[in-house]
Amino acid sequence: MYLEQIDAPSDVRALPASALPALCDEIRSAIISSSAAVGGHLGPNLAVVELTVALHRVFRSPRDKIVFDVSHQTYPHKMLTGRARAFLDPAHYEDVSGFSSPRESEHDLFAMGHTSTSVSLACGLVKARELAGEGYDVVCVIGDGALSGGLAFEGLDNAAELTSGLIIVVNDNEWSIAPDQGGIYRNLAELRSTGGAAPHNFFRALGFDYRYLERGHDVAALEGALGELAGVDHPVVLHVHTKKGAGYAPAEADPETWHHPRPFDVKTGAFLSSADARGYDAITGSFLFARMAADKGVVAVSAATPYVMGFTPELRAQIGPQFVDVGIAEEHAVSYVTALAQAGAKPVLGIYATFLQRAYDQLWHDLCLNAAPATILVFGASVYGTTDATHLGFFDIPLLGSLPGLTYLAPTCREEYLAMLDWSLGWRGGPVAIRVPVADVVSRPDFARPANFARGGEVVREGSDVAILALGDAFPLGERACEALEGRGVSPTLVNPRLATTPDEELLEGLGSRHGLVVTLEDGIVEGGFGERCARVLAERGDARVRCYGLPRAFLDRYDPEELLARRGMTVEGVVGDVMRDLGRA
Amino acid sequence: MYLEQIDAPSDVRALPASALPALCDEIRSAIISSSAAVGGHLGPNLAVVELTVALHRVFRSPRDKIVFDVSHQTYPHKMLTGRARAFLDPAHYEDVSGFSSPRESEHDLFAMGHTSTSVSLACGLVKARELAGEGYDVVCVIGDGALSGGLAFEGLDNAAELTSGLIIVVNDNEWSIAPDQGGIYRNLAELRSTGGAAPHNFFRALGFDYRYLERGHDVAALEGALGELAGVDHPVVLHVHTKKGAGYAPAEADPETWHHPRPFDVKTGAFLSSADARGYDAITGSFLFARMAADKGVVAVSAATPYVMGFTPELRAQIGPQFVDVGIAEEHAVSYVTALAQAGAKPVLGIYATFLQRAYDQLWHDLCLNAAPATILVFGASVYGTTDATHLGFFDIPLLGSLPGLTYLAPTCREEYLAMLDWSLGWRGGPVAIRVPVADVVSRPDFARPANFARGGEVVREGSDVAILALGDAFPLGERACEALEGRGVSPTLVNPRLATTPDEELLEGLGSRHGLVVTLEDGIVEGGFGERCARVLAERGDARVRCYGLPRAFLDRYDPEELLARRGMTVEGVVGDVMRDLGRA
Repeated sequence: MYLEQIDAPSDVRALPASALPALCDEIRSAIISSSAAVGGHLGPNLAVVELTVALHRVFRSPRDKIVFDVSHQTYPHKMLTGRARAFLDPAHYEDVSGFSSPRESEHDLFAMGHTSTSVSLACGLVKARELAGEGYDVVCVIGDGALSGGLAFEGLDNAAELTSGLIIVVNDNEWSIAPDQGGIYRNLAELRSTGGAAPHNFFRALGFDYRYLERGHDVAALEGALGELAGVDHPVVLHVHTKKGAGYAPAEADPETWHHPRPFDVKTGAFLSSADARGYDAITGSFLFARMAADKGVVAVSAATPYVMGFTPELRAQIGPQFVDVGIAEEHAVSYVTALAQAGAKPVLGIYATFLQRAYDQLWHDLCLNAAPATILVFGASVYGTTDATHLGFFDIPLLGSLPGLTYLAPTCREEYLAMLDWSLGWRGGPVAIRVPVADVVSRPDFARPANFARGGEVVREGSDVAILALGDAFPLGERACEALEGRGVSPTLVNPRLATTPDEELLEGLGSRHGLVVTLEDGIVEGGFGERCARVLAERGDARVRCYGLPRAFLDRYDPEELLARRGMTVEGVVGDVMRDLGRA
Repeated sequence: MYLEQIDAPSDVRALPASALPALCDEIRSAIISSSAAVGGHLGPNLAVVELTVALHRVFRSPRDKIVFDVSHQTYPHKMLTGRARAFLDPAHYEDVSGFSSPRESEHDLFAMGHTSTSVSLACGLVKARELAGEGYDVVCVIGDGALSGGLAFEGLDNAAELTSGLIIVVNDNEWSIAPDQGGIYRNLAELRSTGGAAPHNFFRALGFDYRYLERGHDVAALEGALGELAGVDHPVVLHVHTKKGAGYAPAEADPETWHHPRPFDVKTGAFLSSADARGYDAITGSFLFARMAADKGVVAVSAATPYVMGFTPELRAQIGPQFVDVGIAEEHAVSYVTALAQAGAKPVLGIYATFLQRAYDQLWHDLCLNAAPATILVFGASVYGTTDATHLGFFDIPLLGSLPGLTYLAPTCREEYLAMLDWSLGWRGGPVAIRVPVADVVSRPDFARPANFARGGEVVREGSDVAILALGDAFPLGERACEALEGRGVSPTLVNPRLATTPDEELLEGLGSRHGLVVTLEDGIVEGGFGERCARVLAERGDARVRCYGLPRAFLDRYDPEELLARRGMTVEGVVGDVMRDLGRA
């Protein structure tokens, strides 16, 4: 086996060309086997096997700099830079991150996981090279899906004016996560169908030298094409046609499902577990589908992740023009729903928290400045969201909490979530965001349904010793802590605050005057979070101690949620112990 | 005079074509006179006089929807939609906003002032029209400078795939605020020089129907070209060549200076006051210039506003490749400096707070996740910054405060600012942002200079009754309040916190245990701000009352800073009165 012998890119360069197809087969097989066992970005990685081998044959990493956009397609790169064991040996499948990681290797230049950044990063490397008077090559590899992101355009626009070498490999597998959306993709299709000779050419229009390579899985052809560009003295685009999921038939047949599959059986392509049809994605999709059927003004909008809000390809086909996928273009998505709302429609944007932060200015300057009555569903904002440092979702409360006029609701259960979503569709008083729960789906049919969710919190139980404000996903912990405290002779008050970013001052003042201790629980960072807002209101009165539980402001990577919560005292035992001590009853 | 007779666009349409040149002269003259008196976006407005007249002749606002990108070029539009008096009568020069404002007129569809949003907004209007089955025209007017912003690309990419009509007018005056930067501008230049016939065409590459009009100041030609597009059933780009500052010789000769001049003498073009050579812009520019001359690794980066960091055209020419203007591309700017820093250079990005928020994800995912040792100079983050709702700069502390590993410093004086900037250039421990003061330049030569500014605050005077933490620009208020309190027999402690987003817990605990009252003063919003972070630390101990002064989380528009500060209690009398009451000595 060649792959086991490769400790560094120099070993790839030392192989005879005749060995490369076999090496590619081994890499492909390792991607499939490891993804089958633990899940992974199967489709994107299968597309770049030959390209990655060719890159490491032609360029000398780390002297030459290779930046992989989004970096979820770096499994072959990792295998060729000393980390093959993490894909070959099941005992080591969890050793490496699914993304580029400088902590793992000097061949990984940046920690990254969001799309469309690579050209800008490469421009910075080029400038640093110029200032230092050095001569290495800078290469960035960007997928077609990432080109719709505005940052990629900003990078390309600047890159086109560089006066020294930059090699931009456009890895065109014809897919974003879901199908590509946008005018640039018609141009890419024209270029593919004409072997790069179409009269209209997006890259040439920006001023790039442009080359096209149809045979994106022919390692010799790739090595030849890249070899011609080594040492280039100006910016150049090499457009390479690849196939998402190449070499694994189920993935070739259904690129969306196989973009990042859960564990599966390699032989049959059958998934080892069934998709959870009762999660908040499916709950959202079926609720919205019914509302859209009844009201032609309701429009669901996604930025390249329709599945997060339950819009499967089937549902999208059924609903037609009331569903819009704008592609990887989060900024556009927010400005777009702003205008839809101002023009009288009822847009609902469903988006991961980690991607919503790409549109902060549009939230501030478009949505909120115009008090546009759109609904934003924020997914994955929780300790239970993605646990990669690149995709943490629990920074949302400080972010959205600085937006004037935004009502940010944190439902505590399924019923309250749907009631809030239903309310937001009729509310014309300004934008509403909803922090969709991520933890287990909880049912609480007796939740209090107010006429106006923008108003304040729900006192769920009245006590006298300690008041616990348990926000959204943290509500079940608050409930259990109250039960345990009662068992220890303490009389707790429990509040469902509902509003994540605006403390209910009247309620808080009452709590502060009647309890010596107020506790806040939130599934988000403490700094700038919900608890701090309460602490300020209470500290201005000065009559209660306050204890704020939440997550650290840190780039935690592949953490264990339960372990983290325990470390932060966010367990029944932790909270009860602290409260007993604070009350002097420990 | 025609202009005085125009109350609505229907009056423009009723004029004979022969009257239009005179109407344009009147509009132009009103722009010049009003800007000469009170300042304004002179250059951009002079460029669109004829275009705006033609738009209101061809389209029927507000039935047809016209969206002006950035909207600083809407003076002619305002004059033609019932607001001419605000430009003709000096007593009414301050009646209207310098930007589009739905509160002023039904012809202003969105409040806006940041660039590159218009195409996305227009796409939303088109979708709403389709859903409602209506038939009005949607037009957006976007300047060449705004095209470099990634959001504009996201919008264009989506617009190109629309299946009903959208008219995108590219108002090409060959300038951003400063000179345009990027490959797209070479293409615009090719298109201009060939009358739109150049073989490479950015817009056609995206799939747009494309038209070119060279005579952008010929109102009849404009009316003809727009008239052909009324009722169009597909997306189309009309590229119009205009001249920034057209009709006013000094502005034509120096478009950068005359983009937004301060008051001037119309006849001579001389400014009525001289530029303040002692402001923080000039202080920054001369400090950096000296450091750059001594160290080739120091790179100053701007996103289209070089003047804010003191880089005049002369300074830029002198320093050469160590200054980079990336154009209107804030996201790119942050990713770019991330890579520069990781590659060993010492980048300094100077940017307005209101524009930095456009790059939140790049700050989080590129700069901070990679702990890249770049310096960000944040300008205009103050109640004394721009007072338009569209450009408020005092939301920065909550925004930057959620970023792991960012050191955000708030200097209290000129000397401390330069010491922090100097320190940041040598610091390799991660990214540093500096909240450049905006209030009057204050000198405090005896400030304490620590070895490491990332560490914590400076106790400036020790007292026992009340501790005042006065952040950055609010420090002089803290100093004066302490003096006044001393005169009233109170013993105050005064702290310069230095760190805007990370409370110095050790210091705070000491303050809380030794004072019954802790006061925080900050020139930023309270919610999620510096004071709340301190309040949480203090409330967890529960031994001191806390009073947090700051600004409201609200879209204040054209407010009076002193009046606002007084309303928030942020005056010497306000603070002293509150403290005396809180101490029971009132």
